[in-house]
Amino acid sequence: MSSHGTRADRGARGERDTVVFDVDGTLVDTNYHHALAWFRAFRRVGVTPPVWRIHRAIGMGGDQLVGAVAGREVEEVHGDVVRAAWAEEFAPMLDEVPAFAGARELLTETRARGYRLVLASSGKPEHVDRYLDLLDGRSLADAWTTAEDAERTKPAPDLVAAALERVDGGRAVVVGDSVWDCLAARRLGLPALAVRTGGFSADELVGAGADAVYEALPDIGADLDRLPLAPAHPR
Amino acid sequence: MSSHGTRADRGARGERDTVVFDVDGTLVDTNYHHALAWFRAFRRVGVTPPVWRIHRAIGMGGDQLVGAVAGREVEEVHGDVVRAAWAEEFAPMLDEVPAFAGARELLTETRARGYRLVLASSGKPEHVDRYLDLLDGRSLADAWTTAEDAERTKPAPDLVAAALERVDGGRAVVVGDSVWDCLAARRLGLPALAVRTGGFSADELVGAGADAVYEALPDIGADLDRLPLAPAHPR
Repeated sequence: MSSHGTRADRGARGERDTVVFDVDGTLVDTNYHHALAWFRAFRRVGVTPPVWRIHRAIGMGGDQLVGAVAGREVEEVHGDVVRAAWAEEFAPMLDEVPAFAGARELLTETRARGYRLVLASSGKPEHVDRYLDLLDGRSLADAWTTAEDAERTKPAPDLVAAALERVDGGRAVVVGDSVWDCLAARRLGLPALAVRTGGFSADELVGAGADAVYEALPDIGADLDRLPLAPAHPR
Repeated sequence: MSSHGTRADRGARGERDTVVFDVDGTLVDTNYHHALAWFRAFRRVGVTPPVWRIHRAIGMGGDQLVGAVAGREVEEVHGDVVRAAWAEEFAPMLDEVPAFAGARELLTETRARGYRLVLASSGKPEHVDRYLDLLDGRSLADAWTTAEDAERTKPAPDLVAAALERVDGGRAVVVGDSVWDCLAARRLGLPALAVRTGGFSADELVGAGADAVYEALPDIGADLDRLPLAPAHPR
């Protein structure tokens, strides 16, 4: 069975032919490291947000996170300083970030079933480089993105849209870990599968529009044959 | 209005006269630091659990956490090593742990309204020392505990029971941040108020038996006059 044949069959049945994977928190275990790096970055400018509030904002773009966590005034006065500090605080943690168990296998399986595969990261290019290494992403994915590929960050859908453009559109499903991934997918009328690996609860993910919630990546594999789980038309 | 008069009035009305506060994650912002410290500790023995799984187990005793996160075999082979490593990994983070905004004010207000006040921490004595400093705990609380005051850790109710013994029992309400606090309170037939500061979702806390869920400590203050929120008899 060639992957092209599979792809055409799916198309004929009105099913999905492309899977867009979020990377941070979905394929690599970074959300808690990011939360602590942001906490330390905020403290450098004398702001002490509760870490759980930061955690819930992880997955938004850094350009939106500072204001969302600490308010517009902190963003206006300290936003760029906090973002620079975050990069410094996260840098020494990059090497301890692992891929989630089953991540490479899921990417391999997704591709073997004929889906086009896009890794839509909003991470810094130097971080995405590391993650692509961990995931064999350069050989498995049809395309990938970094923060530099979209003007507006999640929950705006631009990054997912940019990811889809890389593979000429397609009928995609989005796999992510955060409410922001689900909201971005929803704005594009795409179904979203969510994994709990980012630390959001099932309830929070469903509330943000997830069509299905999985405990871990390997649980998605079994459902690859029955994508989509949601109607194809925009909601 | 004397606090004793208030206390007697409450007794006559069948209300609560004692508030037991969990400390880690509830009054001081430690859960995410603990999650990362445990992650690093596990990796020292070659085990890489997803950090979100560790996060969800924070608030259990360390004697139970290793097995709960990584399974019985890891506990049997590596349990004590991982616990020792956790203490080493957490130590350099202790100084960056802040009290949550409003923590001291809530303790002051609780006491001013005539409640007996107990800080029930299952932390190591050297950690609890630091938290008591942050919270003015020695002057505000009637009693406090550390990990050394109970044989079995949460979700077993021993620590909360030990805390209550320190103030000769009383009709208590428990304030905590984790599902384990709620489960422990429930086993003693005590109502539990939960704050989201530990990073559990409202849904998870209610599922574990929380009688009310608050976004932050200051939100509890307004409800201090109408404790309990649950029937006094054991459920």
